[in-house]
Amino acid sequence: MNEVINLQLNHKSIRKFKDEKLPQDIVETLVDVARHTATSNFMQSYSIVCLTSKEKKAKLATICNQPYVAEASHVFIFVADQYRNKQIATENNQETTVLHNMDRYMVAMTDAILAAQNVNLAAESLDLGTVFLGSILNDNEAVKELLELPELTFAVLGLAIGYKDQEPQLKPRLPKEMMFFEERYQTFDNYVDKLKEYDDVVTTYYDLRDANTRIDSFTHQITQGMNRKPVKRLRVKSDIENQGFMTE
Amino acid sequence: MNEVINLQLNHKSIRKFKDEKLPQDIVETLVDVARHTATSNFMQSYSIVCLTSKEKKAKLATICNQPYVAEASHVFIFVADQYRNKQIATENNQETTVLHNMDRYMVAMTDAILAAQNVNLAAESLDLGTVFLGSILNDNEAVKELLELPELTFAVLGLAIGYKDQEPQLKPRLPKEMMFFEERYQTFDNYVDKLKEYDDVVTTYYDLRDANTRIDSFTHQITQGMNRKPVKRLRVKSDIENQGFMTE
Repeated sequence: MNEVINLQLNHKSIRKFKDEKLPQDIVETLVDVARHTATSNFMQSYSIVCLTSKEKKAKLATICNQPYVAEASHVFIFVADQYRNKQIATENNQETTVLHNMDRYMVAMTDAILAAQNVNLAAESLDLGTVFLGSILNDNEAVKELLELPELTFAVLGLAIGYKDQEPQLKPRLPKEMMFFEERYQTFDNYVDKLKEYDDVVTTYYDLRDANTRIDSFTHQITQGMNRKPVKRLRVKSDIENQGFMTE
Repeated sequence: MNEVINLQLNHKSIRKFKDEKLPQDIVETLVDVARHTATSNFMQSYSIVCLTSKEKKAKLATICNQPYVAEASHVFIFVADQYRNKQIATENNQETTVLHNMDRYMVAMTDAILAAQNVNLAAESLDLGTVFLGSILNDNEAVKELLELPELTFAVLGLAIGYKDQEPQLKPRLPKEMMFFEERYQTFDNYVDKLKEYDDVVTTYYDLRDANTRIDSFTHQITQGMNRKPVKRLRVKSDIENQGFMTE
C-alpha cells in the first residue's frame, strides 16, 4: 500500500462545498495533471471548459438538477474534441472524413474520461472535494449552448471541485467475483441470489447513514434504475450525431 | 506537489516488459482500486476481463498489432457492461429497454474508462510499467470471441501491465492555452500558426529520442492521422449496435 492507492481506496463523492475559491496555482496544477494523462495515438483529442462564474454554474446546476453544482468553486467540463484536429488537418489541406466515424468519437471520449479521473484523483490528493457530473448529459443542447461548443466536440463528463463541507462514509462496492473475470467473461445463473450478501451490506450501509436514510438494496436500485428515463437524455445519440460525430 | 501529483505528471507508456509475473496480491490490489472508482448512479456498469495465458495474450497482440502486448504479465480489458444489470432487473420482472439507449452505453463506457485510469495510476505507483491498448478496437468481433462477451457488453479499453524494461522520456504535451478554456470553448483563427512553438518542441523531442527516431511535428502527426483507416476498426458503430447497445 502507498499514498496513491490508499487515496484511491478511500474515494468518496462530495456534494456539499464551502463557499471558498480554489487558488489559481491549484487550478494550474490540475490542468497540468490533465495534460499529462495518457492519450490515444498522442492526438490529445479532448479539451476542458472550466466554469467559475455564478451565472454559468447556476445554469449548469439546473441542467444537472443538482443544486450543489452551483456551490462548487470550479466545474471542469471534459469535452471529447476532434474540432481542433480537424482545423489543423484542414489548414494543411488534408481531408478529414475519418473524424466523423464513431471510432474517432470513442478515442476522443476515452481521452476526455481518462483525463477526468486523473484530475479527480489529483484534487482528492489535495484534500479537495469532488463529484463527477454525468448529469450534464441531461440536456446536451443546453450544455452545447452554455459552453459554445463547435462541431466535432461533445461534453462527456463534468467534475465539480471545491473545499469539502461533509465527510460521507465509504460506499460498499460489488464483490470482486461479480466484476473481475479471468481469461473470459463469466455469466451466472442467478444474479439476485449471487448478490444476496452484497445486498445486505448495501442495505446496512443506507440504514446507518445519518441523513436522508434510504433503505435500499443494490439489486433493487439496479431494478428501479430501469425506470429512470429523462426524455432529453435519451436523445444523446442524435445529439452526438448533430455535432458531426458518429455519422458512420 | 505531493506523491500522487508527482506520479501523474511523470506518466509514460511502457512498451517493453520483463519476463516476470505480477504476484497475486498486487493484482488483488489493482482490482480493489478499480472497484473503488467513482461510478455513475452507483450502478457499477463495467467489468474487467484479465488475460494472463500465453495463448490469449498472443491472440490479443495480433488484434492490437503490437507484439509487446503478448510480453506483458497481465492484460486488463475494461468492458462497458449492462449485461449484469439487465439480468438483475429481468430476474425481478422489470423491463429493461432503456439499457439499449445510447445513454446507458455512455454511462457504462464512462465507468469502464474511469476505472481503467485509476488502475493505471495504481500500477504506476507500484513502479510497474503500463500501456493503454486502444488498439483492442481494431477488431471488435475477434475481441468479443476471445473474451466470450455476451450482449450489452463491449470491450472499450485494454491496459497491459508488467515489470518495465525501458525508461522512455516524458513526451511534451499541448500547451494549456490550446486545451483549457474558461467559461466557454475557444476557437482560434489559425491552429498551425498557434502551434508553431509546440511543433518545434515535439520535433526536438523526437530528434533527441534514442531509438526509432521519427522527426515529426505535432500538427504533421495530426494531419497524417487522418489517413489511418483500419477497415474493421471503422465498423465500431455497428459492432457496438450488434451487442444490443445504442439501438436508439
